[in-house]
Amino acid sequence: MGNELLEGMNKRMNNTEVKDLSRHAGEEVTVSGWVETVRVHGKVAFVVVRDGTGLLQCVLVRKAVGEEIWELGTTGLTQESTVAVTGVVKPDERAPGGNELGVTGLTLLSAAEEYPIQPKEHGVEFLMDHRHLWLRSSMQRATLRVRSEIMQAVTDFFYNDGFTRVDTPILTGSIGESAGELFSTDYFGETAYLAQTGQLYVEAGCPAFRKVYCFGPTFRAEKSKTRRHLTEFWMVEPEVAFADSDDNMRLQERFVTYLVERALERCGEELKVLERDTGLLEGIATPFPRMSYTEAVEVLTAEGQEIEWGRDLGATDETILAGLHERPVLIYNYPKEAKAFYMKENPDDPRTVLCNDMLAPEGYGEIIGGSQREDDLTRLLERIREENLPEEAYAWYLDLRRYGSFVHSGFGLGIERMVAWITGRPHLREVIPFPRLMNRLSP
Amino acid sequence: MGNELLEGMNKRMNNTEVKDLSRHAGEEVTVSGWVETVRVHGKVAFVVVRDGTGLLQCVLVRKAVGEEIWELGTTGLTQESTVAVTGVVKPDERAPGGNELGVTGLTLLSAAEEYPIQPKEHGVEFLMDHRHLWLRSSMQRATLRVRSEIMQAVTDFFYNDGFTRVDTPILTGSIGESAGELFSTDYFGETAYLAQTGQLYVEAGCPAFRKVYCFGPTFRAEKSKTRRHLTEFWMVEPEVAFADSDDNMRLQERFVTYLVERALERCGEELKVLERDTGLLEGIATPFPRMSYTEAVEVLTAEGQEIEWGRDLGATDETILAGLHERPVLIYNYPKEAKAFYMKENPDDPRTVLCNDMLAPEGYGEIIGGSQREDDLTRLLERIREENLPEEAYAWYLDLRRYGSFVHSGFGLGIERMVAWITGRPHLREVIPFPRLMNRLSP
Repeated sequence: MGNELLEGMNKRMNNTEVKDLSRHAGEEVTVSGWVETVRVHGKVAFVVVRDGTGLLQCVLVRKAVGEEIWELGTTGLTQESTVAVTGVVKPDERAPGGNELGVTGLTLLSAAEEYPIQPKEHGVEFLMDHRHLWLRSSMQRATLRVRSEIMQAVTDFFYNDGFTRVDTPILTGSIGESAGELFSTDYFGETAYLAQTGQLYVEAGCPAFRKVYCFGPTFRAEKSKTRRHLTEFWMVEPEVAFADSDDNMRLQERFVTYLVERALERCGEELKVLERDTGLLEGIATPFPRMSYTEAVEVLTAEGQEIEWGRDLGATDETILAGLHERPVLIYNYPKEAKAFYMKENPDDPRTVLCNDMLAPEGYGEIIGGSQREDDLTRLLERIREENLPEEAYAWYLDLRRYGSFVHSGFGLGIERMVAWITGRPHLREVIPFPRLMNRLSP
Repeated sequence: MGNELLEGMNKRMNNTEVKDLSRHAGEEVTVSGWVETVRVHGKVAFVVVRDGTGLLQCVLVRKAVGEEIWELGTTGLTQESTVAVTGVVKPDERAPGGNELGVTGLTLLSAAEEYPIQPKEHGVEFLMDHRHLWLRSSMQRATLRVRSEIMQAVTDFFYNDGFTRVDTPILTGSIGESAGELFSTDYFGETAYLAQTGQLYVEAGCPAFRKVYCFGPTFRAEKSKTRRHLTEFWMVEPEVAFADSDDNMRLQERFVTYLVERALERCGEELKVLERDTGLLEGIATPFPRMSYTEAVEVLTAEGQEIEWGRDLGATDETILAGLHERPVLIYNYPKEAKAFYMKENPDDPRTVLCNDMLAPEGYGEIIGGSQREDDLTRLLERIREENLPEEAYAWYLDLRRYGSFVHSGFGLGIERMVAWITGRPHLREVIPFPRLMNRLSP
């Protein structure tokens, strides 16, 4: 199985990465990676190697490499075998990455058993069972590279905007929203819940740092099997002191526009692999269209939807509303009964709260939920009682209104939905490395 | 309670932040924030306001502000009350932040009830019970600002070094290490465990992206009450294909040095508040001293410690070894039985594995654990059986050795221990916003 060779590699580990080859034109280098394909044309063979930074076509000329290497290269390399290839870098515009390698040496580091994922159609469950290998496929690589860029763009945006990162706990006694089911665990005799939001905690950071955000995994034990739901997903939640609902929507627009621009700027190759229509993304700019919930109900009724004022918008409603525009749409000031207890009552219409959702274009659904928070102690306490929430668990949260209350607003953006929209992937399971779904806990 | 005033504020929300005041010297601005102290000296009063970006001394001259404002400023402002102060910015070198405000207007936005945290000694449990308020204190603010900087520095380092971020799941069926207790939850009828490492998953990312890392919260249900343990803590775990144990240690040195330099460069003010001896940090540079486990045992024996070759190092051992140097120390190649199953057997001494710990100076303990991974399928399977681990749960992990095995190495750095060392805080509970300890699940 090439184990001695693997160990031997330790002595000559300083391989050149494929992404750097253009700096080595005409030089002899060694590249290590995994075999994607082997094609033989008479006395020339083409071995495509993936090294994790790019693809490289390695050209073996029978006469030049000799029989031993020719034999290995043409018959000894199964798909995904690990190899070290030595050769001369030849710039070639037609080649992926812009270079070919004229092979002078080839070492098999580890022969792969018959690889389960073939260049053919596989069922989704089969691919999900092999997620640890499926990650190597070009579409999955491209999707997850965009995700990685977005993850960094998120922290860059808030860092450069003067926010302080406040990491909020996953294990918690109290709970953020009444909606949705929670995972729970025994915590040394107590019951702890897995947080579905860090918002309540991050609010406590405002009087210390003014502008704060948390960014981490969140959990919902919803028995939902739609393509828009994961049981474990990443969310970024900024919170700003002395910002009202309008400020909040402006921050959302600026943030989402930044993420889209960043992907366009730095993930061009990946979006090409994904055949994403980037024209639609290039049109994303502030301001985004806005519509009150009440206006939305009128529009939906005119469109023939049966919707009664007071009930939350459903997926179909959202698709209709988002379909009216090419930019994300902000729907604001929902009915109180459709939203969480901590949202601030709208002084101009107390049936509603100062909040908004952001709906992505092209049917990608809600990517943001945000609100101004109820800063009045008495009203907040009333809402907690109305919703029959455990008052004791919220005692510390109420303290934030007791000791220097302040106007503040924030929102949560779901990373997977954002990445799904940017990459144009229809299902959330492909935009996270190891998705967790109702019926999927492995690998 | 000033609720109408809070709502009124929505109209004039565009306050100036204290950190930007130097750009407004001589101008009249409005600052909103929380009252820290009020001192009255005859006909002049000093109100120190914290706005989350800095502290500002606001000077009220009785004759200038008039009786109403004077009365409010001198008798109506309890600690942590929220105020909006209008006045003229006066540069003053002695003032915190370099400016004073000559007050012309003062509005009470929200009067605070009697604030529980006073400028006196409080017991630790009292402060921890009030963690949501304690965050506002200067030492806590400084500590958590350093943490926020380190969090960003971590992602910057790996992003700039060409790593792809691969987010690994918290909810998992299989488990990373045999040691330590795990939290578990019901997962739609199955049992899921809260991950104590993302390593096994991140290894699967290598054949896709070569250099990868994960960064998120991890969990240990250890019944441990020491100052070095949390049940929920953040860890960053890079993994590099075609890198051996030596490469791994070099990456660790470079990474830790970067984090220290970044804190020194951008958190000077915070380290001053914390009275951190930065001279010790300024000496941190590569290379770090290295010592094999076997050498460490000799040194410890010479120091009078009773230690038998084969057993893991204890906290006291680590303190002695770290105390020999002013830089972090790398202890490498531990006995196989003291370490996890996935570490690669040392070909030069099969009693040991190719791994290392990094011990921070000044008694802050182990900040990194890392290793080259066992890439030989047969040996890895043997180790899984020797440790009586559930083979079925590791089937996908074994696949990584079946389909193109490769030399690879990685490590985990604990964020809280790193921040504790940089900030000089003795207990981990102060370097995370909402610590989770065996007896602490709230707030």
